[in-house]
Amino acid sequence: MSDYVIGVDVGGTNLRLALADMSGNIAAKWFASTVGMRDPEKVIRLILDGVKSVLSQVQASPSALRSIAIGVPGVTDVENGIVVATSYLMGWQNVPLRALVERELNIAATIDNDVNFAALGECWTGIARGVRDFVFLAIGTGIGAGIVLDGRLYRGSCWAAGEVGYMLVPGITDGLGKRNEPGPLENMIGGEGIRTQWQRRWSSERTSLPRDLNATEIFDHALNGDSGAQTILRQSATMLAQAIYNISLVLNCPLFVLGGSVGTHPELCVATKEILKQWDLRGTPQLNVSSLGADAQLQGAVRAALDLVDVDR
Amino acid sequence: MSDYVIGVDVGGTNLRLALADMSGNIAAKWFASTVGMRDPEKVIRLILDGVKSVLSQVQASPSALRSIAIGVPGVTDVENGIVVATSYLMGWQNVPLRALVERELNIAATIDNDVNFAALGECWTGIARGVRDFVFLAIGTGIGAGIVLDGRLYRGSCWAAGEVGYMLVPGITDGLGKRNEPGPLENMIGGEGIRTQWQRRWSSERTSLPRDLNATEIFDHALNGDSGAQTILRQSATMLAQAIYNISLVLNCPLFVLGGSVGTHPELCVATKEILKQWDLRGTPQLNVSSLGADAQLQGAVRAALDLVDVDR
Repeated sequence: MSDYVIGVDVGGTNLRLALADMSGNIAAKWFASTVGMRDPEKVIRLILDGVKSVLSQVQASPSALRSIAIGVPGVTDVENGIVVATSYLMGWQNVPLRALVERELNIAATIDNDVNFAALGECWTGIARGVRDFVFLAIGTGIGAGIVLDGRLYRGSCWAAGEVGYMLVPGITDGLGKRNEPGPLENMIGGEGIRTQWQRRWSSERTSLPRDLNATEIFDHALNGDSGAQTILRQSATMLAQAIYNISLVLNCPLFVLGGSVGTHPELCVATKEILKQWDLRGTPQLNVSSLGADAQLQGAVRAALDLVDVDR
Repeated sequence: MSDYVIGVDVGGTNLRLALADMSGNIAAKWFASTVGMRDPEKVIRLILDGVKSVLSQVQASPSALRSIAIGVPGVTDVENGIVVATSYLMGWQNVPLRALVERELNIAATIDNDVNFAALGECWTGIARGVRDFVFLAIGTGIGAGIVLDGRLYRGSCWAAGEVGYMLVPGITDGLGKRNEPGPLENMIGGEGIRTQWQRRWSSERTSLPRDLNATEIFDHALNGDSGAQTILRQSATMLAQAIYNISLVLNCPLFVLGGSVGTHPELCVATKEILKQWDLRGTPQLNVSSLGADAQLQGAVRAALDLVDVDR
């Protein structure tokens, strides 16, 4: 009978879970909605449901489980297994998630920031395979960076490295330094920010397009020639280029990987590259779209679960 | 007869040189002007003059020399001993400084960015003694950061980590991405930038103070209550706080050390701390003024020279 590990990605919308064999091949998947779910105990019960389901999909018993790794959208004390804080949507504070999960499952557990896991995933089987230094930049509702230096995740002294959704770039005038609210960069070029920019534009200008569009739909319309949508795309790409430029000035990393629902839109990547090329940065980084897409986090969680039981890469 | 090492700090105004014994005690010092000096051969001849002088000061022979470390104001390929580029004032491009010096002196040599050496100096005998993770932020004519992670200098993939004089923060509207000119942040809060801001203000407002003041004099007048000088100080502190905030978001380092002729002014540190405190940054870093002051670079160069011959710390 073969052994398995479990990777989990906890998001504000969905909880996704994968069962993988000891070579990292995904044997079964499961997901459930987390909309409006803030209570950690409920999230743990959801994880237990998922574990039960994937085990039954492959007809394995709980004793076949070796480890579990859980990615959460927030600042995570990896050493002590504590979720220090999640985004304003979930609002967790100092939740000892690892201990809670270990108690229920009786297997080795680890937790980390979801964007860190995404970086780990791209490093293992994605577009950053074999790259020793790169930044994974996730742009969805929020914005965060997973930083890999010398082949290892760099997490900072309070586990808050890469919290770049709060970055201050030209054009940002308010929302500075409010910790439990979206950061100023997120407010401009996160999914909700872009949506808001569009609605403002829509009210003042009137286009033939609907008022209610999400970021990727707006970028699609930009590609199809709508000038209002093109303005939003250009604004978003400019601010993203500024953020990448600033991060590059600090880290001088050769590669940025764009992930997340907004970040993986090809037009955003093209427009951002174009702007960065105009600026004469020493060692302008390569800019690529994530190759694992929405699976990056889960893939990284599986890798972290394998690392926990010392399975070679 | 005792052995010695040499540390050199090459600046746009002065070249400073120190002879130290194998315990790192400075036995002799020397300096000379480099104003208007752009030719690397001339700088090397100056270094040779200095070496001769410090040796004669302690009545030692050239055979007592073990190693030399030279800090330069620019991007430096430490592995190959090449100065990739210096600031616009010196304008060096790909100068094989290490080989040139080794040929003349026949001793082990190493070169590095001067701000990296300053960080090393603060780490060894200064205010960051024993600190594993911190950022040394030098603010003089230019602005640059020396980044220490896990007790070691972090230099980036093309030796350009910490080139934060080019950082884009709110209020910066032009000068983006021009590599061989001062960066936009330097233009605002570097020594020359602050001087220019003052002169602009002076022309439009007229104060009883002279038009020609340098940054530290302006900050002194701010402390003495001049409202125009206070405005310049507040503007400078705000932009500096924004830059520190952005670097912190990426690195999440617990300590920033302010160095350089402008950066060591106590009023700038006080005003910047005040602004940072108002923003709710996760893990707001401690902000301290360099304790080695103008000697930080030279001290770090001595340490690097000792490291070259494997002298324990």
